[in-house]
Amino acid sequence: MAEIHDHQRAAEWFKHVCRDVHGRLDGLDEGALASYIPELARVDPDHFAIAAMTVAGRSANEGDCDQTFTIQSISKLLMYGLALETHGRDEVLKRAGVAPTGDPFNSIKLDEAHRRAPNPMVNSGAIAIASMVEGDDLAARREVVLALFERYLGRRPEVDEAVLASETVAGNRNRAIGYLLLNEGIITDRVEETLDLYFMQCSILVTAVDLAVIGAAIANHGVHPMTGQQVVAPQVSRDMLTVALTCGMYDYAGEWAYTVGIPAKSGVGGGIVGMIPDVGGIAVYSPRLDAHGNSVRGIRVFEELSEEFDLHVFDADRPWRRNT
Amino acid sequence: MAEIHDHQRAAEWFKHVCRDVHGRLDGLDEGALASYIPELARVDPDHFAIAAMTVAGRSANEGDCDQTFTIQSISKLLMYGLALETHGRDEVLKRAGVAPTGDPFNSIKLDEAHRRAPNPMVNSGAIAIASMVEGDDLAARREVVLALFERYLGRRPEVDEAVLASETVAGNRNRAIGYLLLNEGIITDRVEETLDLYFMQCSILVTAVDLAVIGAAIANHGVHPMTGQQVVAPQVSRDMLTVALTCGMYDYAGEWAYTVGIPAKSGVGGGIVGMIPDVGGIAVYSPRLDAHGNSVRGIRVFEELSEEFDLHVFDADRPWRRNT
Amino acid sequence: MAEIHDHQRAAEWFKHVCRDVHGRLDGLDEGALASYIPELARVDPDHFAIAAMTVAGRSANEGDCDQTFTIQSISKLLMYGLALETHGRDEVLKRAGVAPTGDPFNSIKLDEAHRRAPNPMVNSGAIAIASMVEGDDLAARREVVLALFERYLGRRPEVDEAVLASETVAGNRNRAIGYLLLNEGIITDRVEETLDLYFMQCSILVTAVDLAVIGAAIANHGVHPMTGQQVVAPQVSRDMLTVALTCGMYDYAGEWAYTVGIPAKSGVGGGIVGMIPDVGGIAVYSPRLDAHGNSVRGIRVFEELSEEFDLHVFDADRPWRRNT
Amino acid sequence: MAEIHDHQRAAEWFKHVCRDVHGRLDGLDEGALASYIPELARVDPDHFAIAAMTVAGRSANEGDCDQTFTIQSISKLLMYGLALETHGRDEVLKRAGVAPTGDPFNSIKLDEAHRRAPNPMVNSGAIAIASMVEGDDLAARREVVLALFERYLGRRPEVDEAVLASETVAGNRNRAIGYLLLNEGIITDRVEETLDLYFMQCSILVTAVDLAVIGAAIANHGVHPMTGQQVVAPQVSRDMLTVALTCGMYDYAGEWAYTVGIPAKSGVGGGIVGMIPDVGGIAVYSPRLDAHGNSVRGIRVFEELSEEFDLHVFDADRPWRRNT
Repeated sequence: MAEIHDHQRAAEWFKHVCRDVHGRLDGLDEGALASYIPELARVDPDHFAIAAMTVAGRSANEGDCDQTFTIQSISKLLMYGLALETHGRDEVLKRAGVAPTGDPFNSIKLDEAHRRAPNPMVNSGAIAIASMVEGDDLAARREVVLALFERYLGRRPEVDEAVLASETVAGNRNRAIGYLLLNEGIITDRVEETLDLYFMQCSILVTAVDLAVIGAAIANHGVHPMTGQQVVAPQVSRDMLTVALTCGMYDYAGEWAYTVGIPAKSGVGGGIVGMIPDVGGIAVYSPRLDAHGNSVRGIRVFEELSEEFDLHVFDADRPWRRNT
Repeated sequence: MAEIHDHQRAAEWFKHVCRDVHGRLDGLDEGALASYIPELARVDPDHFAIAAMTVAGRSANEGDCDQTFTIQSISKLLMYGLALETHGRDEVLKRAGVAPTGDPFNSIKLDEAHRRAPNPMVNSGAIAIASMVEGDDLAARREVVLALFERYLGRRPEVDEAVLASETVAGNRNRAIGYLLLNEGIITDRVEETLDLYFMQCSILVTAVDLAVIGAAIANHGVHPMTGQQVVAPQVSRDMLTVALTCGMYDYAGEWAYTVGIPAKSGVGGGIVGMIPDVGGIAVYSPRLDAHGNSVRGIRVFEELSEEFDLHVFDADRPWRRNT
Repeated sequence: MAEIHDHQRAAEWFKHVCRDVHGRLDGLDEGALASYIPELARVDPDHFAIAAMTVAGRSANEGDCDQTFTIQSISKLLMYGLALETHGRDEVLKRAGVAPTGDPFNSIKLDEAHRRAPNPMVNSGAIAIASMVEGDDLAARREVVLALFERYLGRRPEVDEAVLASETVAGNRNRAIGYLLLNEGIITDRVEETLDLYFMQCSILVTAVDLAVIGAAIANHGVHPMTGQQVVAPQVSRDMLTVALTCGMYDYAGEWAYTVGIPAKSGVGGGIVGMIPDVGGIAVYSPRLDAHGNSVRGIRVFEELSEEFDLHVFDADRPWRRNT
Repeated sequence: MAEIHDHQRAAEWFKHVCRDVHGRLDGLDEGALASYIPELARVDPDHFAIAAMTVAGRSANEGDCDQTFTIQSISKLLMYGLALETHGRDEVLKRAGVAPTGDPFNSIKLDEAHRRAPNPMVNSGAIAIASMVEGDDLAARREVVLALFERYLGRRPEVDEAVLASETVAGNRNRAIGYLLLNEGIITDRVEETLDLYFMQCSILVTAVDLAVIGAAIANHGVHPMTGQQVVAPQVSRDMLTVALTCGMYDYAGEWAYTVGIPAKSGVGGGIVGMIPDVGGIAVYSPRLDAHGNSVRGIRVFEELSEEFDLHVFDADRPWRRNT
């Protein structure tokens, strides 16, 4: 009884802080929209949402939480889980390592010593991971990916066809990466098909609430906070968390681990999802990006919440955690 | 009562596994002694110790636990804590960032964008950190360092004078790094004195048991497991843990975080210390190194213990932890 | 009269030395055949030809001078001349610079500061140059290339269709480079067509005698030594010579300029052509390559001939030259 | 008689063009003074001199030809000649290669494959070369260097003591390079002494006329144009010319070889000396530098003179040369 009371108090406090942080950062307009395709430069830069969901399914939402946006690189984390589950660690590690790099997310540099992509969170690794999706043709492989996202989202995912078309046309750097991976024998020869798949996974539409649910599932060792379904195996969710912590925020990952200390993944669509193991997921949507490609307000929100609620993985004291 | 019983059973089980792992790996003679100075190439390559200490002061030792060896790079972690405590994060971050690098520990490459060393666990960062030790002259600054180690070790530390003399003579790469740091304005002009200090910190003699104690103190948010003394502030110990996880194992750090998932630091003397937050410290001494400069058997021991006892920071289930 | 006599004596002496060098190096079997496509690994590794032609059309041939082989990267030099002549220096320099690189010929690294390929002798630059061949479709553009080679060879060039097919299948690294160039806006969107063209230019069959003729034409400021035709403008031939001297021998170019000092271009088919301005062309065919991708015996022959006849561009004394 | 007349006409024409170029470029104030030491930032940025000397000792001077300035990196070329003459090519090549690099002149990156400096024109190579000056102590080694410069200048060289003092204090990047070279076993342990020597060679005072004389001597296969003394062996002068062409203009060398095509060396003091083999030396002094560290007006002057007089090493037609 006392415990339930505590839960309510903690939840209230969390909501209060979210509202406060949202209000304080609402006017922050630093950063710039992603511009490599026109579609991303066309979104409303002022959109700002903070969403959270506990592993028990309790939620807190603030701001434009119904606003959809493309998931972009955050999809890499889910696809990585799929590859691990389908093929096992050994096969996956042959194609993408787990070493953080100081290079930008779209770097073409491979891990030459091991003849693989450096990690699954940079584009080269994500394309290598996408190549592992099985199926006789593009339609079949798309279905595998859509089914994966459906398990997390609880609904059939929608794809932003304009973004997808644009990514496909503009994706020559990724195409270059694809052929380099093929040349190194890291991926099979269905390069264009795999790129189609990769562009599609990036163009899936989500809301901040969706991301919070995704984060809660991973934080909950793969158990979906609302359906109770095991969307990914516990052992796999552990690997997803590690890679999110060490490589999830592009070349800002080291600094993020230090100051925020929450396994997280960001996308150039403006989303960031963070996972607090055994506690829940937090997501921010705010499309103005910094030089690393991370949401400016997103980073600020996580810094403030991590400090306020002792969410850093190595914090001595995590009261919210104990109350969950 | 039942809990104490559980503690005893857990401790017995842990000791049993340590003995088993030690026995199985005893014959493993892969790797090579560090050879950049003759003194390190002269140690007995077969020495092999596993030591552990819980935050409550319970210990488990197996093998050559009384054997002393030079602490080498593990000293970087303690010195980093000292710098944070003395000067605060902002000043420290001006001199050394927190970004993992794919470069070897003795790389001369700085973080040019921020005009600082990439992180405090590579030599450039460690020398930058050593430069922050205050004092009017070398003797005074040495005393500060020795006092730091004394707090952790519970005794006045001994320095291996032969190794120190050798490091000083052979340390021209570090001397080059020192002058580069000076050139960039990262350190002050007492380069030779700071190098003396750095070579001394590397030449301090420890046993595997000492390292386990050090690890337990850091894992215990800075509270020494035997003296109860706060040897380093809790907030600082958090930063030490983060940097240990992301940068502690040289360019193997990403893989270590993935497979072992324990914040750790290794030294070319053959030691590795791991810190399991709220649980304790584990140390291995075995001087044959792999190409990254990490103890070969040390890595194997940590892999096995992490798996057996679910010690990975993101493991779903940590029974040992709950029993502590 | 005396001059003619001198010419004859010089010619005799040159032939004598070629025979001698050929004889002495005939047994040298260091190096290995190019193996990235099976066709190149199938040639007879012992083939060995030395051919020379003066700007006046006098020739000296030793060994397997009728043996055809694929021209490979040597084609880059002729294509560079074509691009300069067709589009002018300014347009060409927008796509490929003239900076030697320490990187291998197939490096994917571009000159990011100038958003262009580093130079026209590495693959990225050569593909950028091939993209400048005009024509409505592949057939028309192929015709432009074949006509270019016809001017140099004095006959319709033959293409090794097996090598071409193999290059096309195996050319995924070049495909990656192509899409990267497209992504940077360096080339137009006819990537596959341009690659087809590039693979074709590399698959053209030549003999050592052909290469000597090509070399003589370039050394003769573009005037063909046999037909008297201006196959390339004098100003363009100067640029070809410079780039051959600074970038022609892959990452061995600096050492080559130092010890041999003859503008030259090599190909992984085993050919090397050298150009002594105002004197003539020298070619070697010997398919065993060193780690840089240069013919092992080819380099040795040039070293010996350069020394014997003072052919280095900065030699104080060039008797052969004065007698030409 | 006709020939002498031609010589006079050619000389008049050359002087006329120099005057014209000097006049046209006099107002060009792009670029910035070197600022790494205060002394270099204090010179008059408007100084502008063009000087030339033929191998036969005829001269043409325009502008501030009596103005002294520190020779800086141009000294590297003379020191390279000294090392070659004293120790022979093999010993020199063990310490510094001949590969152009895309890195800045003060790069600390060595040629790790060969365990040597990449070339003698970057600082690491120049320090390696300075280390080869023999002598029991600094005074003796200084004397060797001063005697070398005396042979070229025809007078005892003066050292700018203020610049020397400043270089010594500010030279921590070079000190870092020195210790790195020592660490790699490329130089001996007299690091500070060798740096003293290196700083001294850079601080020698010259005029544009001096540089033209130096250039003429090297262009004349080592024979001094005024004293007739063999200041350096012909074979050595060839190696100096090659390295000047491929590495003399820092990371601008490739572009310089392409557009100017004259072996040359520049210094951050604002001087550039060019050597036209068998013809003479040309020097410019103008202290405003571009981003590569080369004199802005210096480059422009050489571009114009090279074009006007066909001085490019691969120019088809060099009338001035034939008239010399």
